[in-house]
Amino acid sequence: MRPDAREVGGPVRVAVLGAGVVGSQVVRLLLEHGNELAARIGAPLELAGVAVRRPNRHPDVPAALLTTDAAALVARPDVDVVVEVIGGLEPTRELLLTALRRGAAVVTANKALLAEHGPELYEAADAAGADLYFEAAVAGAIPLIRPIRESLAGDRISRIMGIVNGTTNFILSAMSQQGVGYGEALAEATRLGYAEADPTADVDGFDAAAKAAILASIGFHTRVGADQVHREGIAGVTAADIRAAREIGCVVKLLAICERVSVGGGEAVSARVHPVMLPVAHPLAGVDGAYNAVYVEAESAGRLMFYGPGAGGAPTASAVLGDLVAVARNRLVGGRGPGESAHADLPVQPMGEVPARYHVSLDVDDRSGVLAAVAGAFAAAGVSISDVRQMGRGTDAQLVAVTHTAPDAVLATTVAQLGELPAVHRVTSVMRVMGELR
Amino acid sequence: MRPDAREVGGPVRVAVLGAGVVGSQVVRLLLEHGNELAARIGAPLELAGVAVRRPNRHPDVPAALLTTDAAALVARPDVDVVVEVIGGLEPTRELLLTALRRGAAVVTANKALLAEHGPELYEAADAAGADLYFEAAVAGAIPLIRPIRESLAGDRISRIMGIVNGTTNFILSAMSQQGVGYGEALAEATRLGYAEADPTADVDGFDAAAKAAILASIGFHTRVGADQVHREGIAGVTAADIRAAREIGCVVKLLAICERVSVGGGEAVSARVHPVMLPVAHPLAGVDGAYNAVYVEAESAGRLMFYGPGAGGAPTASAVLGDLVAVARNRLVGGRGPGESAHADLPVQPMGEVPARYHVSLDVDDRSGVLAAVAGAFAAAGVSISDVRQMGRGTDAQLVAVTHTAPDAVLATTVAQLGELPAVHRVTSVMRVMGELR
Repeated sequence: MRPDAREVGGPVRVAVLGAGVVGSQVVRLLLEHGNELAARIGAPLELAGVAVRRPNRHPDVPAALLTTDAAALVARPDVDVVVEVIGGLEPTRELLLTALRRGAAVVTANKALLAEHGPELYEAADAAGADLYFEAAVAGAIPLIRPIRESLAGDRISRIMGIVNGTTNFILSAMSQQGVGYGEALAEATRLGYAEADPTADVDGFDAAAKAAILASIGFHTRVGADQVHREGIAGVTAADIRAAREIGCVVKLLAICERVSVGGGEAVSARVHPVMLPVAHPLAGVDGAYNAVYVEAESAGRLMFYGPGAGGAPTASAVLGDLVAVARNRLVGGRGPGESAHADLPVQPMGEVPARYHVSLDVDDRSGVLAAVAGAFAAAGVSISDVRQMGRGTDAQLVAVTHTAPDAVLATTVAQLGELPAVHRVTSVMRVMGELR
Repeated sequence: MRPDAREVGGPVRVAVLGAGVVGSQVVRLLLEHGNELAARIGAPLELAGVAVRRPNRHPDVPAALLTTDAAALVARPDVDVVVEVIGGLEPTRELLLTALRRGAAVVTANKALLAEHGPELYEAADAAGADLYFEAAVAGAIPLIRPIRESLAGDRISRIMGIVNGTTNFILSAMSQQGVGYGEALAEATRLGYAEADPTADVDGFDAAAKAAILASIGFHTRVGADQVHREGIAGVTAADIRAAREIGCVVKLLAICERVSVGGGEAVSARVHPVMLPVAHPLAGVDGAYNAVYVEAESAGRLMFYGPGAGGAPTASAVLGDLVAVARNRLVGGRGPGESAHADLPVQPMGEVPARYHVSLDVDDRSGVLAAVAGAFAAAGVSISDVRQMGRGTDAQLVAVTHTAPDAVLATTVAQLGELPAVHRVTSVMRVMGELR
C-alpha cells in the first residue's frame, strides 16, 4: 500500500461561491486535477455546486453544478467545504457564518471580509470546530499566511513589511521607470487590466490595509481591524516625489508595515500602509510591476523574504486549492488547523506616535537666512535633521531635508509649519523614508 | 473566553535529543517562551528530558533534565514529542523509529537521515498515526517544507531550484568577491565558523544532495533518495572558472535543482547538485554569504522565491519550534499533519540524459584551423554552439564556447574529446550554464 492511500474515505464535497477570475480557475483545476488531488488527500474531492449570479455566463462549468442560490448551497448538509471567491462583505459574511456554524470548513480569499469581520468568523469556526483558511487573502500565491501562522508559531515576529498590492506597485514602477505622472500610469494600468475600472480599493490603500490588518493579527497574536490600520494611498504621489526619491538613491513604494513596538514598559502593534522612499539597495526596492514581496523579521529566524505573483486567477486559485487540500485532510483524520490566536492582545499604536523619518523638499527664496529659518522650525519641534541640501536656482532655491526619527505627528506638524514660513514658496515633496541612506 | 484558550489540555511533554548549536537554542526558547508557546498551542509544553553525551558541558540546561540515555528517553510513555537535533544516521534512526512506533510525534532537523531512511520513518509514522515534521531539515529558518507540502498541495510544481548550503555559498561568494582561490576561501570559512573542521559534507555537496532528495520527494510526490541525486561539489571550482563566469556576465553558484521533466510520453524527476554559471541578473545570483534562497515554480502559482538564513542555532531552532507547536496542536485536537505523499511514483532521470548547456574554456594553438577542429568535434557529437570567442595571446589563444542544450552525457563526452585534440593544450574551465545569457 502506498502511504498516501492510508486514509481513504470521503468523498469530500466542495461548494464554490463565485466563478469569476479566481473561481473559474478553482473549478477548472478541481475538474482537471481531481485524481492528483484525491491521491494527495486520500479521498476524492467532489464538486457539489458552484454559486454564480448569471449561470449563462459560465460555459466551462458543468450546467448541473451551477446555482444562483448561494444561501441554499452553503446550507446543504452534504457540503463539507465552502470555497468563497465572490468577495464583498455582504451577503458573503452571512453565507460563511452559515457554513461555519453547521461545521463546514471555509476557504476564503476575501481579505476585506477577514479584516472587517475576522473575529466573528473565527468565533463561529471555533464554536463548531471548523476550519477557516485564507492563504489566498494576502499576496496571492505566495505562501505567507501558513508560514506566519504555523512555521513561525514558535518564534516572536518583530516586523512584517511588504509590497502586497500589485496595482499600486505597477503604477509606481511605471512612474519611476517611464517618468510618467500618476494619471498616465494609472491609465496604463487600467488599459492593461492591472487596475480595475474603479481603482479606489487599490490606489487609496484599502486593499493593502486589509492585508496589513490580517498580517498584524496573525503575526502578533492580536486582533487588528482594518480601521486600526493607518492608511495613505498613492494618489498623492507626484513625479516630483519620484525624482526627489531618486536624488537620494531611493525608489517610492507603497508598503504595508506591521511592527511590534515597545511603549512605556509594554508592547504594542503598529500597522500602517503608506508610500515610502526606500533605498535602491533594499531587497523590496527591486520588486517591480505586479509582483508582491514580503519581509518577515523574527527574533530567532532572522530576516525572511517571500516573493511571487500577488494576484491573478491561477496563482490565487493555487493558494485556494492548497487550503482546500489541507482542510480536506483535516476532515478525514478528524483534526483541525490552527484557529484564531489572539492571546497577546496588544494595543495598537496610534500613527501619530509611530517613529518616522521624513524627506521634505521645499521651494524657497535664494537668500541668506532661509536655511536658518527652516532649521529653526525643525529645532523648535525637537526634530533633528540627518541631511540637508540647498541648491540655488537664480532667484529661488530648492531645499531638501531628511530628518532623523521623530514621532509621526510631530513631523507632520513641523512640515505644516514649514509651509507657513514666508521664505518657503511651496512644499514640493513630503514622504517617509525607510532604511539606511548612503 | 479568548479563542486561543479553546483547547486547553495537556501538558504536551517534549524530549530533546541533543543540546549542541541547535538543541541548546531549542531548550532555551522552550524555557524562556513557555507561556507564549502554551497560549498558542492551548496547553503548556513541558520539557521531559534532554539527551546529551556529556552532561557536564550543558550548564544552561536544568541538571535534572539531562540524561545520557537517549534510548530510555524516547521510550518513555509520557513523552509525547521527540525533537531530534543530534544528527547522524545511527543510532538516530533507531531512536526515532522507537518514538514513532509508540505513537510519539517526531520533529527532526536531520536531512541526511530523511534522505537516507525517509520512507522507513514515514511508514512507522503512518502505521502509528504519528506526526513526522522536518521544516528545519532544509534551509534552516526559511519556511519551505510546509509551503511545499501544504501551501502548494493543490498545485503542480515544475521546478525547485536553490542555494541550500550556506558554507559553499560563502566560499563561492568569497572567491568571487575577493578573487581568492578555493583553498584560501575554505580556510577563511573555517576560521569564521562557516565551515566545519571536516568540510566534506558541505563542499562535496552531500548536504545539498540530501536536501535535494527531500525537496524532490515532497515536491513531486515521489520517493527520491540521496543516492539518486547527481552530486558534484565545489572543490573543483577554480579561480579560472570564476573569471570565466564573470566574462560571460555570470557568477558561480552551487545549486540544488529538482525538476519535473517529460520523457517519452511520461514524466520523470531530475534531482541534482552541481556548480553552475548563473547570469548576474538572476535573483539567485545576488544571494551571497551564508544565506539560502529557493525558487519554486508551479503550474498555477508561477514563480515563488523564499529567502533567509539557511543555518545557525537560533534560525534552525525557530523552524523546530514551529513544528513543535504544530504537532502539539495536532495532538491536542486529535488530528495529524500530512504524511508521506508518494503517489506520483515517478522515475528519476539519469544525469546523462538531463538537458544541459556547457561553458567550455580551452587553451589552444593560435593558428588557423583550430576553431574548425573544435567546432567539428562539437558538430560530430550533434552539439550546437550558442556562442564562441577566440582570443589570440601570441603563440597560443583562448577559445571559449557556450553550447546549446544537449544531453549531459553527450556534452561530457564531447569535452573529453576536445581535450584530446592536438591543437588543444588544456581545458581550463568546464561548467554548466543556467538562465539566459545577455
